[in-house]
Amino acid sequence: MQVLKERILKDGKALDEHILKVDSFLNHQIDVTLMNEIGEAFKERFKEHKITKILTIESSGIAIACIAAQYFKVPVVFAKKTVSRNLDAQTYDSVVYSFTKQQHYTVKVSKRYLHNEDHVLIIDDFLANGKAAEGLLEIVEKAGATLEGVGIVIEKGFQEGGKKLRERNVKVESLAIIDKLGKDCIEFRDE
Amino acid sequence: MQVLKERILKDGKALDEHILKVDSFLNHQIDVTLMNEIGEAFKERFKEHKITKILTIESSGIAIACIAAQYFKVPVVFAKKTVSRNLDAQTYDSVVYSFTKQQHYTVKVSKRYLHNEDHVLIIDDFLANGKAAEGLLEIVEKAGATLEGVGIVIEKGFQEGGKKLRERNVKVESLAIIDKLGKDCIEFRDE
Repeated sequence: MQVLKERILKDGKALDEHILKVDSFLNHQIDVTLMNEIGEAFKERFKEHKITKILTIESSGIAIACIAAQYFKVPVVFAKKTVSRNLDAQTYDSVVYSFTKQQHYTVKVSKRYLHNEDHVLIIDDFLANGKAAEGLLEIVEKAGATLEGVGIVIEKGFQEGGKKLRERNVKVESLAIIDKLGKDCIEFRDE
Repeated sequence: MQVLKERILKDGKALDEHILKVDSFLNHQIDVTLMNEIGEAFKERFKEHKITKILTIESSGIAIACIAAQYFKVPVVFAKKTVSRNLDAQTYDSVVYSFTKQQHYTVKVSKRYLHNEDHVLIIDDFLANGKAAEGLLEIVEKAGATLEGVGIVIEKGFQEGGKKLRERNVKVESLAIIDKLGKDCIEFRDE
């Protein structure tokens, strides 16, 4: 997605060989106009699929999932990382490891909001080691729902998450795949 | 906002006299169509105001802030609750107490995304004791920005947050104000 790649080159910053900072438009400040272009791009890439629900994970997946959902005309469900008195007791759970935050956490989705007749598109801002996506896949499986695919804004192609998901025959659509990060260096995969 | 009140009566559930569960459409599963109606309602209520940025707090404020931002054509910034390697070192901070989660946490906004020329609309899903809103107000003040107002989806009118903000001459627009909660009882304030 050309406009996204140009924005990453203009406003993104590689902190080291692993971390790309895009918090000026994607995951702290959010450029809602760009999010709409991203939402349309996901709709285009999954236009042949019957989607009944978009599943994401708090916090940084929520913005893009909700904007994208407008193009699919379906509800969003976001997996919760924190325990709250508001959450149902009956949940589908998965344990996820965050490399960015260097900790394990349990993500939960109420059984009331994911069913075996659902056709699910998972959307997230980043795909790196794939731990969050695998956690969401596990929740989709536990619900007996059908996974239609995974839509990712930025995939770190030099990490194994995308490869692992594709080896499981998951349809992964990443709008920008970065093959190399480093000081003053952001290299995209040719598509 | 009539459609919102009807939805609260239809799908909301009072867990006790303090906690209203609306996670089927607002803060776990998200009805994006309703969010658009809510976004338009905020635009209508703040149409005389020059807004340059919408500020909210992760996680459950993000969905409504992003959908609403489309009507204001401005970026969203969400205050972060968790420390991440991705966050700038230079931040505006505020310590907030969550009654729902019964803990203090520090919320942070990068100094790069809030400036003294900004005119800020704070948006959140709930207003109860007002601790989150007060924390966001403090961040707006620290940035030297101008607060244009606070837009809330559901205000618990029987708690003191709304009253305290209005006593500080903050323009608070709540789309539904609940004056009484209890078993089989959700009473709205007349408007």
